[in-house]
Amino acid sequence: MSAAETLASLGEAAVLQRIFPRLPTATAELLGPGDDAAVLATPDGRVVITTDMMIHGPDFRLAWSSPRDLGWKAAASNLADVAAMGAVPTALVVALAAASDTPIAFLEEFADGLRAGCEAMAPGCGVVGGDLSVSSTLTIAVTAFGDLEGREPVLRSGARVGDIVAVSGPLGAAAEGLRLLFEHGAVTLVDGSREPDAAAAARVTREHPAAIAAQLRPHPPIADGRAAAIGGATAMLDLSDGLAIDARRLAVASGVGVDLDPAAIASPSQSSAATSPRDALDGGEDHSLLATFPAGVDLPGGFRVIGTVVEGSGVLVGGRPYERAGGWDPYEGWDGGSG
Amino acid sequence: MSAAETLASLGEAAVLQRIFPRLPTATAELLGPGDDAAVLATPDGRVVITTDMMIHGPDFRLAWSSPRDLGWKAAASNLADVAAMGAVPTALVVALAAASDTPIAFLEEFADGLRAGCEAMAPGCGVVGGDLSVSSTLTIAVTAFGDLEGREPVLRSGARVGDIVAVSGPLGAAAEGLRLLFEHGAVTLVDGSREPDAAAAARVTREHPAAIAAQLRPHPPIADGRAAAIGGATAMLDLSDGLAIDARRLAVASGVGVDLDPAAIASPSQSSAATSPRDALDGGEDHSLLATFPAGVDLPGGFRVIGTVVEGSGVLVGGRPYERAGGWDPYEGWDGGSG
Repeated sequence: MSAAETLASLGEAAVLQRIFPRLPTATAELLGPGDDAAVLATPDGRVVITTDMMIHGPDFRLAWSSPRDLGWKAAASNLADVAAMGAVPTALVVALAAASDTPIAFLEEFADGLRAGCEAMAPGCGVVGGDLSVSSTLTIAVTAFGDLEGREPVLRSGARVGDIVAVSGPLGAAAEGLRLLFEHGAVTLVDGSREPDAAAAARVTREHPAAIAAQLRPHPPIADGRAAAIGGATAMLDLSDGLAIDARRLAVASGVGVDLDPAAIASPSQSSAATSPRDALDGGEDHSLLATFPAGVDLPGGFRVIGTVVEGSGVLVGGRPYERAGGWDPYEGWDGGSG
Repeated sequence: MSAAETLASLGEAAVLQRIFPRLPTATAELLGPGDDAAVLATPDGRVVITTDMMIHGPDFRLAWSSPRDLGWKAAASNLADVAAMGAVPTALVVALAAASDTPIAFLEEFADGLRAGCEAMAPGCGVVGGDLSVSSTLTIAVTAFGDLEGREPVLRSGARVGDIVAVSGPLGAAAEGLRLLFEHGAVTLVDGSREPDAAAAARVTREHPAAIAAQLRPHPPIADGRAAAIGGATAMLDLSDGLAIDARRLAVASGVGVDLDPAAIASPSQSSAATSPRDALDGGEDHSLLATFPAGVDLPGGFRVIGTVVEGSGVLVGGRPYERAGGWDPYEGWDGGSG
């Protein structure tokens, strides 16, 4: 592997030949990459489908994320959406657009991250197809598929008054990592602006490895999506924009209120240390699973109680309405920076 | 609809509310946009999947393509890949990344183009999900799905010596349109470079409406994919990179040679005027369907004979090897321009 080998010097066909062997294979793959389209087995007679883009600048910084991190996170965020329907992830297709002078090693390591992420979070799930394009903005578009195994999908709209509210996975850990990176993983330029910096990020990563990993390589509890569905979950979604916003979405869809316990949301999970209630409520990108269950059930997998479903509307914390908007709107939240 | 309304001024949720009603609905949709993922019916027990990106600059120019054109073409190019497997397109998911100051009208017209394209080329196919992101490079990523209706997929690898080679749809029309746009739809800047220009493009479109339409709003014969499979096609692919390159792919995959008839490939099709043999061989983006059939069959749909499958390898024209590479490699072919 030579550093001089780029996408342009190799050409599309040779690039694909280098990447294909590194990608994870899907158990449900009937026909993989190489023809006009792939064919995936869907023995249930239905397929769960979700798609998500990651854009250099608003969604990641190359001074902070390695290519392997990007592959892992692209898998994690899409697998979580499949899991949140109560389905088992079966396959991904991955489209990637990069500059012509991108080293082939970048794509190889990205493929390694996809494979590592699938193997760790959703064994049996693999990449069945994709597309390579050229762009001045590094762009990753993943579409993920899942098998409902004969069950009904778990929607956002099924929560009932009296249900318990539970979460599996960390609350606020990814946001804590992002704040640490912006505060200590960037350098101040002569014009006073801040720019992501790899050496500074390496230092803050040594001091806070868990929080940085939660941001760059989130590890949502994918198998708990299936476990929740089997365990009787009445509603579920993945926490991409933060607990307050996503719990509100569940509340609105179900026509109920969600009352969160401030002590429970700030307590440590199996996979992360305690965070501040504000990070827990407003921090996005954990991709943890938020679900409601009938009162009295034995919670499956890593789920822990953080609240109750009540009459009314919106999100409450300790019985008091929580009105802060929080979260991330791509069209309002990005300042145009990259690095 | 105000020109002042942009993605940033409306915010993501309001943008989605404006777009959803304009999108085509899929007959096979069990759960559409609004939850973590969609659910699509796949009664066959398998699903055909293909994904493709369109990037501002290498893949389209905003001086030439309207938002409606982009929606139509994004549908067409993906529907053709599904059709080339012998499948019936059932659904799309569409991810789009645009600058914050993009007018909402742009996305509304893009959605209208998706709907018009699906209705014209693949009735019953609709959009079941998607993703909106922010990017300084306008990027469209479509994943398309198809139903094999119990048939085996038609691969590139099934052509046998003695088969006839047939095509449905134009050959070279899209390339002729692109050449006209580069020659007459651009203006020369003070530094001598050429830049796409909307007024110049409007003039050349008045003179050559069919060729320009073939480039900006290709109308591949999607239903002929299913017809070819039922009619006994032994191999098939869609012509995205040009007849010479794509016929070579079929030949390599099948371990045969493909001998093309120079008179047949330059003759007019149902959907376009006669083109030069060179445009027919080397011009991409028609998304016509190239298929092989056993000798003596009644060709289905709009298929017409353009050659025969022979012993040997590669592509021949009138019995003589055709070695010109042609086609489009994104990492070698883009000069970095946009406009």
